[in-house]
Amino acid sequence: MVVKSQLKLIKSLHQKKNRIQHGLFIIEGEKGIADALANDLTPYKLLSSQVGSNVNSFEKISEKEFSQISALKNPNGYLGVFKIPKQAALDFKDWVVVLDGLQDPGNLGTIIRLCDWFGIKQILCSPDTVDVYNPKVVQASMGSLTRVSVYYEPIIPLINGCKVPIYGTFMEGTPIAKIAFKTPGIIVFGNEGNGISAELSKHITDKVTIQAHESSAAESLNVANAAAIVFYEMRRELLKG
Amino acid sequence: MVVKSQLKLIKSLHQKKNRIQHGLFIIEGEKGIADALANDLTPYKLLSSQVGSNVNSFEKISEKEFSQISALKNPNGYLGVFKIPKQAALDFKDWVVVLDGLQDPGNLGTIIRLCDWFGIKQILCSPDTVDVYNPKVVQASMGSLTRVSVYYEPIIPLINGCKVPIYGTFMEGTPIAKIAFKTPGIIVFGNEGNGISAELSKHITDKVTIQAHESSAAESLNVANAAAIVFYEMRRELLKG
Repeated sequence: MVVKSQLKLIKSLHQKKNRIQHGLFIIEGEKGIADALANDLTPYKLLSSQVGSNVNSFEKISEKEFSQISALKNPNGYLGVFKIPKQAALDFKDWVVVLDGLQDPGNLGTIIRLCDWFGIKQILCSPDTVDVYNPKVVQASMGSLTRVSVYYEPIIPLINGCKVPIYGTFMEGTPIAKIAFKTPGIIVFGNEGNGISAELSKHITDKVTIQAHESSAAESLNVANAAAIVFYEMRRELLKG
Repeated sequence: MVVKSQLKLIKSLHQKKNRIQHGLFIIEGEKGIADALANDLTPYKLLSSQVGSNVNSFEKISEKEFSQISALKNPNGYLGVFKIPKQAALDFKDWVVVLDGLQDPGNLGTIIRLCDWFGIKQILCSPDTVDVYNPKVVQASMGSLTRVSVYYEPIIPLINGCKVPIYGTFMEGTPIAKIAFKTPGIIVFGNEGNGISAELSKHITDKVTIQAHESSAAESLNVANAAAIVFYEMRRELLKG
């Protein structure tokens, strides 16, 4: 039996301050919830509006109750509340992706999924980057969130003095296919509109650019698409086999 | 002076059948509208709820009226209604991207933007692919729609007998970095959930795969990210300079 106060608590987790206060966040969808359980995240509540044999571990609620707690336009009937996990310390001996003020939840979710695909386990976000436990980020990450650690810290103090290359994407830089990526390293992506901040730019050791075709009049690439290409090129030799 | 019946007509353009009936579609945002005008699209109406010196060519409407015709959650105050342009015939002597049943408007818009970036001018969509003049597609294409031609036709009759290579992305195939792309060619991407249809798969001459890192447990890449990587690899030698 799920009581009203619990539904109210769950709904409150759509807001960051409440997620922090309670140490809880929401995953929607059967697949994402199964992934979280398989990755040893601790469930606080598993709720479903669906009737079926495979939902024994879920508490049943009505569709009306479900639509009140879901953050999705088209709720899929499965919602898990999980404890926000403690993470291992950030380790610059392995690849770190740095996100400098990313605002779009879909972009962060997609970049988490890309990191998972390309074997990158750590993302360091500036404190003004969109929150990783935002329901839209969780949704777009398609379960990869449970396999990639995401940190929020002021960036410059952490990367200052790191002895690894710091790659960053710019409109002007070395064509990315000419870059011989050294492992480990740091790869920086900037805000959707403004790119990498001037202050952080000073710390970039290797400016890389994804060139457009000479016939192109497009102004920019979406940051998640840029990340896809950079991660692909960084792993290209390894994955070529 | 914009009358009520005109606002009603414009709002009706959110639906595909009305866009087809009237031969009109909507572009929102100052930049996208400027792009469309620069690319010789014919405006039917330019409307704005903003006051300013740079909006002389726009008819002024109230914010309330604007919110009625906008398809955006956060309207930006500029909306252009344009005539759907006539397109040149599809030409397999240049690159053609084929989309087989793509459903997500954001994905189609992003792929149009990527095509523009990488100098691909033609996209052939199966009739069940999301409509290119859907306001969310127009929004995600960020102005690139005016520089890339998008066709809707049954695919197999058109590519059958084409003497160019037909590349398609699959979970199993040749690692993409090992593919020597021949120009021109056709590149096929499938539906978000089901991939390329079985019937169309038979026509693929080169199955390519974007391998995941051995540590990855991600199930798939988003189709727009896959397209970013395929287009990048296809243009890699050319753009390396």
